[in-house]
Formats: sequence, structure tokens, C-alpha cells
Amino acid sequence: MLLEAIEHRPKLNWAYTVDNETIHLRIRTKKKDVERVFVIGGDKYAWDRTREETSMRLFASDALFDYWECEIKPPYRRLKYGFRLESGTQQVWMNEDGFHHTERETSDDFYEIAYINPEDILQTPDWAKNAVFYQIFPERFANGDKSRDPENVQPWGGKPEVDSFFGGDLEGVRQHLDYIADLGVNAIYFTPIFKAPSNHKYDTEDYMQLDPHFGDIDTLKKLIAECHGRGIRVLLDAVFNHSGKTFKPFVDVKEKGEQSQYKDWFHVREFPIDVKDGIPTYETFSFEPNMPKFNTGHPEVKKYLLEAARYWIGEIGFDGWRLDVADEVDHKFWREFRSVVKEANPEAYILGELWHEATPWLQGDQFDSAMNYPFTYAVRNFVALGQTDALKFSHSLATQLARYPLPVSQAAFNLLDSHDTERMLTVAGGDKNKLKLSVAIQMTYPGTPCVYYGSEIGIDGGADPDCRKCMEWETSKQDLDLHAFYRKMIALRLEHSALRTGSFDVLHAEEGGRAIAYRRQDDAGTFVVALNASESAQSIEVDASEAAAWSVLYAGGADTESQSEGSLDANSGKLTIELPAYGYTVLRAQ
Amino acid sequence: MLLEAIEHRPKLNWAYTVDNETIHLRIRTKKKDVERVFVIGGDKYAWDRTREETSMRLFASDALFDYWECEIKPPYRRLKYGFRLESGTQQVWMNEDGFHHTERETSDDFYEIAYINPEDILQTPDWAKNAVFYQIFPERFANGDKSRDPENVQPWGGKPEVDSFFGGDLEGVRQHLDYIADLGVNAIYFTPIFKAPSNHKYDTEDYMQLDPHFGDIDTLKKLIAECHGRGIRVLLDAVFNHSGKTFKPFVDVKEKGEQSQYKDWFHVREFPIDVKDGIPTYETFSFEPNMPKFNTGHPEVKKYLLEAARYWIGEIGFDGWRLDVADEVDHKFWREFRSVVKEANPEAYILGELWHEATPWLQGDQFDSAMNYPFTYAVRNFVALGQTDALKFSHSLATQLARYPLPVSQAAFNLLDSHDTERMLTVAGGDKNKLKLSVAIQMTYPGTPCVYYGSEIGIDGGADPDCRKCMEWETSKQDLDLHAFYRKMIALRLEHSALRTGSFDVLHAEEGGRAIAYRRQDDAGTFVVALNASESAQSIEVDASEAAAWSVLYAGGADTESQSEGSLDANSGKLTIELPAYGYTVLRAQ
Repeated sequence: MLLEAIEHRPKLNWAYTVDNETIHLRIRTKKKDVERVFVIGGDKYAWDRTREETSMRLFASDALFDYWECEIKPPYRRLKYGFRLESGTQQVWMNEDGFHHTERETSDDFYEIAYINPEDILQTPDWAKNAVFYQIFPERFANGDKSRDPENVQPWGGKPEVDSFFGGDLEGVRQHLDYIADLGVNAIYFTPIFKAPSNHKYDTEDYMQLDPHFGDIDTLKKLIAECHGRGIRVLLDAVFNHSGKTFKPFVDVKEKGEQSQYKDWFHVREFPIDVKDGIPTYETFSFEPNMPKFNTGHPEVKKYLLEAARYWIGEIGFDGWRLDVADEVDHKFWREFRSVVKEANPEAYILGELWHEATPWLQGDQFDSAMNYPFTYAVRNFVALGQTDALKFSHSLATQLARYPLPVSQAAFNLLDSHDTERMLTVAGGDKNKLKLSVAIQMTYPGTPCVYYGSEIGIDGGADPDCRKCMEWETSKQDLDLHAFYRKMIALRLEHSALRTGSFDVLHAEEGGRAIAYRRQDDAGTFVVALNASESAQSIEVDASEAAAWSVLYAGGADTESQSEGSLDANSGKLTIELPAYGYTVLRAQ
Repeated sequence: MLLEAIEHRPKLNWAYTVDNETIHLRIRTKKKDVERVFVIGGDKYAWDRTREETSMRLFASDALFDYWECEIKPPYRRLKYGFRLESGTQQVWMNEDGFHHTERETSDDFYEIAYINPEDILQTPDWAKNAVFYQIFPERFANGDKSRDPENVQPWGGKPEVDSFFGGDLEGVRQHLDYIADLGVNAIYFTPIFKAPSNHKYDTEDYMQLDPHFGDIDTLKKLIAECHGRGIRVLLDAVFNHSGKTFKPFVDVKEKGEQSQYKDWFHVREFPIDVKDGIPTYETFSFEPNMPKFNTGHPEVKKYLLEAARYWIGEIGFDGWRLDVADEVDHKFWREFRSVVKEANPEAYILGELWHEATPWLQGDQFDSAMNYPFTYAVRNFVALGQTDALKFSHSLATQLARYPLPVSQAAFNLLDSHDTERMLTVAGGDKNKLKLSVAIQMTYPGTPCVYYGSEIGIDGGADPDCRKCMEWETSKQDLDLHAFYRKMIALRLEHSALRTGSFDVLHAEEGGRAIAYRRQDDAGTFVVALNASESAQSIEVDASEAAAWSVLYAGGADTESQSEGSLDANSGKLTIELPAYGYTVLRAQ
């Protein structure tokens, strides 16, 4: 047994509480090195009468490691625990003080979850785990109120440049709620809508005011009410890392220097503020002089931003915040932010823009989850670019699932593209089959999928600003086949809870292979999803011992009409699945 | 290179900020598997012109692993980084996405410290890093005011039972401040002094009132003023996990049940509160009905306890809190506690009673450090019990040093014994030589050493209540030789900064060996400490290339008079150190 590979630490993704009585424990071992793992657990003050062994389940494997997990409900909300690992006849005991070759007589050196405190439970909103989002970049979605157009507005559908305005607004969104609802999504994520000079509004001028080109507060309230009336939640983007150049306190500091009452609202290294050799004399986002970084440790800054955080949730009715450049703001600020937001609405969804390992923000004290760009890139590399094989793809997914607590993975914002990336269709060289396969994965994977406006009708686009084209509203120019595919996949996801929050197990993923199959399962049903990311038909055999017959819920491929019927029989607990080029199939155990 | 052994994760003990410009990075590799490690780091927004390689230092080794570290000051408070590991001609690059055998062209998949936020810096009080504590159990230290004796007080020096009272009080402490100051310590840690029925006061009745048997507020203020006048800081114990049975809100709940306005101050599972089959119907410390657990998520409870936290620091002048049963209270409470306490006194020392891995509390947001019981047991097992050899002892120390950020290790509360353990002299079977050697280690090791009252004059004692004997004030009954030894070791520590906050490197520790030597070093000096935990004399050779001649600052052993003079010459960069039975020597590079 390779002891150096074995990893467990209290808290983090290894030991966390998910409700008032339930603890999840996980441990990592070298891949294919250990056959069985048991938790030896009990109450520290009543060890002898509460000691119990719990078998762990191998729940994920990546290139180097196997990951095991189990759920434990300790009788008195306290858990002392150690591990026994078995391989053949070899047994190893692992406690907090290291490895032993015999069981210890006492539990003194065991790990501990000292007490399940309600305040520390890692909970994420149920609605987010069950949501399908639609991301709207308001300036480019629909122009519903021409009286609010900015000067120099370009004709709808023109080529977007960094500074272009096309006149999209909130009234435009409201007028197209039928379209959005028809697609089947149940949540909208808006990029920023606060007053700001740019088209993207990531350079806020006033955190308490809507951008007048987007609409007034009444339009917004009406829009939110209509969304809620349709069962659609609304998430709003906020930029609390930095302001824009027209933000009044910053203008004041620029004008008055050290005499400004706002001088400590930013991190100024040298007055008067200036840019020297391309480097601002104050902290900024990147080296961008027009995006001065907030001093989020300053009480007045906190008060101002936290009041905005509260107001738009508590009084206007947004259902959560997506937080821009979240990792450059201090943890202390985010903890207070969470308190304020969850007090205004305990069900609010707090989503961080975190491109890197996000564990330090995802311990239940700051964000519910993060933009899942590792998912984006894993799908991109496997399906769209063909740079990784099925095995490596499955490893990428496993590494991510093992890295975060389950409630975090279940609320991970799984996007294929966004206003910050090339569109997946473009990454895939315009190959719609690859896009469909990517969507099929997205809609059958644990987490919170998000469709970037227009990707569902075939809008393409390279890097910013090209990925921010105007929405296409002429039906003749929309890819309706693609739209129908999205609609079906979204409906499937929302119909079957197992596709959202069920367990996820890879059934087939071979080295050099282009086909992948996985099982999603919960009390309500067992599903197998199989996909072929290649131009040649594939036949794969997967374990399907749950049922003798399996219904085809949806299947298709490159040159194959999609179908939603038929069934497959398992032989000796195995299913043989025929996948055409770029084929996909979703099966359900009968 | 064993990839499975290599570990690094952002934050925790692996990547943390220690001041406004400095980041510490660490990585773990399999023991003796890797020869060199480099950090490749730079600013993410200016990678090309800021990319730099930094060599890492092997700073600790335990049974399975080597631990490497380096310090980096990124030019713009942002750091993107990866690692290059070298062994012979083999090179491996490690980034957030895994291992590579060639260097990546971009830094996209590198790790990130997104921004050094002042609010997130991991700072611990400088005074604590430089303190030597004296722990006082007030009921047993000195009876200075007989008018405050409890009823049924026993004659001073009797055998302590669970319920005995001997009349110790704060005036008694005040009268013996000369003694305490003469020992050389510069800080006192008091176990609880709030009004409570027991002799140990861990069952608080009133968090805003002193126990009348200990004194009144004027005595306390006078005591604190006199301590501060002598440069002695004062740390106070608090029990915020549970109250005592006479705490008024609990009495009210007991009397009025669900009608009590305090019913939510505790975690009551069933009214009226009761004990059924030995299990209280409400949450408690252990199963102790007289120690009801606070609902620290309740706003009124928080307000009450946080006001106590503020008052005793901000208004009465205590220099910090030691927190009883800290791991059973929620993290959210402790974060608010830290804010309140550090606002009252930014230099306050917050010390958690945490017997197990303490990382989740030691990220700069809750406690400064923890009671270092792993140190206690490591010394006990090596020196007093002889159960581990020098190599294993060095591994125990290394595991702990690697587990926590440096500022935490520098403020770790290194105790040999306390009111919760047997006295070290008793653990050592009464062998004073073993106690001395333990103290020699304690006083030359990184952290905050604490002397438990009376251990310095040879008081022994088994487990509670025997470890809580009355202090012996008759000089004829004190072990004055031991006292002189403590005095000398404390003085040495306080004289030389390297013995407190210098680097720590093991120079000698062999399998089966009973001798250990280590180097402590900072800009002010280089020291070698050598110890022999055996009955037979040992001669060891250690690297001493820093100087040709070394002064003996203090040396001695079982049958050897202690001496503080002489010198040793190094030959070809090596020192040969002769250690008598239970010998110790502290050398300084001339």
C-alpha cells in the first residue's frame, strides 16, 4: 500500500457536515492500490458503546488516485474517527498521528469532528442544484425600449467592437420571457446592470442605480415579478473588487488627492494618483487605471457595498449574486457579505467567479459555489478540440468532484461558454455535432448548467468582444434544430432528479477512447448516458445490472435523427450501446 | 519521482501571506526523492516581465515526506506560480492541473494567490512569539486574602480531591509577583476566574463577574497593573462552549421550560430538560448535565458572550484569551469573536484549546494559535517515557512544523503539562533529569513555552485532581536546583531571539538514537542545542560550518554540575559534542 499517496485532513473536501446530523468523510488512496476502506467511528465521550465501522465507497478515480467516501450520522453530533485500509491480506490503520499496522487500543489519536454546529453546515440552495440558467448580456439581448438607446447606437446585429452599443435593455428581456421560458430554463443570470459607462457595465459608476440605458427600477421590478411568476429565478452580477472611473468617490480622490474624504476607499500607494510607466500609483484590476480596486477592509466601503448587496436581494428581489473577480477580494469581506445576503434571503445563491482552485471560498462561510471553468475546459478539450481522450476527460471530472464537498459540486455553475470566453461552437470549429455533445454532457452532469444566450440557436463568436454578438431574433436565421436539441436536453434534466443531483459514476472511459458512458442514480431512477466524441460509430458495453430493460429517453448523432423512444435489453447485466458518429443516448432503467 | 506523494494546495499551510508583501510557499515530496525544487512565479497580468524562479529550501522531514519552503515578494501583490522539481536529470513541472514533463508555454493552469489582501494576512502577536508563560490555577497558587476563603476550605497543601477548596486567590498571586518575575517569565496564563461553583471555575455562573472567592475587580485591576508594570502580560481562560449549572439563563430554562425567554440559548432537544438513561435532553459538554452547551448561533447568546470577550480585554486589560473546548464551538462565532477582541486590542493573543489538527481554526480568521499538545506528547514519549527514538521524535516535530503556517508555529503554546494532564515529573517517574531535558527542549524550540505553576520547584502530580496540588511556598521544600535550571533556560531563551523565532533545523537524530541536536538561527546569531535522553554518555558530531569556535552558553547532565562557560572548536566544519547521561548543551557560534 503506498502510504505516501493516502490523504485525509479534517474539514475541506475531506470531512464536512451537510445537515444537522450528517457528516461526509472522504479519503484518497493511490489508484488501484487499495481494495476496501472502512471508517472506525464513534462518540469520543462514549466510545465503547458507539464504536461502529462504516464501509467507504470508491466514488471517483483520476490519473493517480482513487477517492472514497461515506456518510455517517453520529448519535450525538460528535465524531471521532480513523480509517482501516485493506488490500489483499494487508491492513493499515490511519489516524491523525499517522499509519499503524495494528489497531490502536484507544481512540486518542483519531481524527475528530468535534461537534456538528448548525452554523458551520455546508448548505447550498436547493433551487440552484435544480436550476438550468440562461446567461444574458443585457446590451446584446434585445432592444425593447428605443427611448433608452445610448447615443451612437449601432444597428442591431452589427459586428461588436470593444466600445459598441446596440441598445439592448431590460424591457427587451421582458418582451422575450416567453422565448426564455419556452427553452425550459428556470433561472436567468444577468451580467451587470448598474450604471456604468461601458457596454459590459463591469466598471460601475453607482451600485445603487440601474443603468438608464437598461431601464428604470419599475421596469426591473416588473421584469423580476414576471420571471418569478414563471418560476424563473434571477441572478445578478456584481463587481465588488473594483469600481469604474466615474464612481464618485474615485473621482473625488482623483480631484482632491489626499484631501479627499474617500482617500482610504482605495489602496493608494502615492498621491496624487497617477499612472507611471504603465503602472497606476494605486491598486487596480490588472493594470487598468479605470478600474480602481476597493479597500474592502475599510468600514465605509464595506457599509456601502454591503448595503448594495442587501438592497438588490432584500428589497428588489434578485435571487442571488454572481461575484466578479471574487478571488481578489478579501475573505473577511465575503464572509460579511454572505451574512448580509443570506439574512436578506436565506435561499440566495452566491456564486464566485473563481477560475482556480476555489476551496478557500467554499467551506460554507463565503460562496455556495463557483463558475466551473475546469468543467468548461474539460469538455472543450475532449469534445470540441479532441485534445484529450475519454479516460483523461473522466479524470478531469473526477479531480473536480473529489476536490469539492458534494453540496458545492451540486451547485457548481457548469458553463460551456460565457461573455469571457469564445463560444463553444466557435471552439468546435463550427461543428454543431460537437456543440450538441457538449450540451448533452452539460445537461446530464451534476451541477448548475448555464446556457449563454444565443448559443442555443447557433450564434458563434471568438474571444471578447466577438462572443458578445447581438441575439438573433429572426427565426429564419436561428438554428431551430439546435434549439430543439437544447430544449429537449433541458427538459430531460428538469424531468429527472437523478440527472441533477443523483450520484455520478463513470462506466466507460478508455485510454485513447472517444466514447464515454456514465450512470446517474437516485431513489427515483437510474440513468445511463453514453456519448461518442468521434466521427466513427462506436459500440460500447457497460454495466447495467440495475435492470433487464432500459428505455431510450433521447438518442441521436451526426447523421441520425434524434429519437425519444425504443428500448434496450441488458444481457447478463451488461448493455451494448451502439453510438453513431457524435452519438448520444440517455437511457433509463425500466 | 513519486508523484503521488507531492502535495500543494492554495492557502492552508501551503501558501499564505505573512505581511503586505510577503508570501510563503511550501510543497511536500516523498522523503529523499527530490533534490531541488523551484517556484516559477510572476504577476498574472505581466507574466513575461515578472517571471522569476525561486529556489525552495528543505525545511523539515518526517517519516514519509520532505517539506520545502520559500518566501516570495511579488512586485504587484499578485502571484501566479507553479513548481519545477528536479531529481538527477529528471524534471517534473507541477501546476494546478497536475504534472507535466515539459514546461508549459502559458501560465494559465498555474496556481494563484490572486491578491495579498491586508485583511487576510496571517499575523500573530509578536509579544506571544517572544513570551514565556507561567500557568496559574488560582485556587491552588496562593491564599492572599483569608477573608475570601470558601466554606470548608482545607489546610493549604492537603491532598486535592475533585471538590476540594484550598483558598487560593488573586491577592495571593499579587503577593507572589516577585517570585514569578524572578523566574524570568513575561506572561501569566490564568485558568478561569469568573464566578462559578467549582474549584476549577470551568462551569461559569456569570461571565461578567469575578468569583468572589478569588477577589474583587479592584484586586484584579491592581494585579493586572502590577503585572504590566513588570512587563508581564496576562492571558485569561474562558469557557464559551458551555455554561455552568448556576448560570441564570440555564436555571431559567430548567425552571420554565419552553416558556423561558432563554429557551433558545441552549440546544434543547426536548422540554422539560431532563436526563434520560444518562443522556441529557439538551446538548452538553460530554454528557455532563451541569455543563449545558451554548447555542452560539443565537444573536442574544452571541451578544452576551462577545460583550464579555470585549469587556475583559478592552476595559479590564487582559492581553488575550485561552479558549476552552474551542473545537466544539462554531467557526462563525470564533470569527466574530476575533473581530471583537482584536478591535478591543489588536495585540491580543487568541489561543484555542485544540488537541487535534487545528488548521481549520488557524487561517488568520479565528485563533492565533493552539495549545500544542502534540509537542507535549512528542517530548513525553521521547524524553520521559523513552517510547520513541530521536529520529521519531524529530519526525513528530517536523510533522507539526509542516502542518501550520510559520506565524502559527511561532505562537504555538508549547506546554509540558497543565491542569488537564499529569505533571511531566510524574510522567517521568520522578526523574528530575528527564524533566530538565524536557524543559531544555521546550525553552529552545519555536513557539510560546508555558511553565505550569510549581513544576519549576519539583511539584509532581498524576491526572486531575492530583495535578492541581497547592503551590509549595516553603523554600526548604522547593527543589531549588530545578528552579535555578528553569531560571537559566528561561533567561537564555529571552536573551537570544534565535531561540525564540529563529529557523529550526535538525542536525542529528538517528534511528534507535537517544541524542538529538538542532540549530536555531536568525540574523542575530546561530545556536546549536544538543541533548542526550539516555543514561549513557553520548558523543555526537554535527555540522557547524557557521563558525570555527562555539561558546558554551549552558551545559550539564545527570551527574554533572551545570556550567555556563567554555568553548568548543569546530574541525572541518564539524563539532564533536560530548553529552553526559541526560546531558544538554546550548552552544553559540562565536
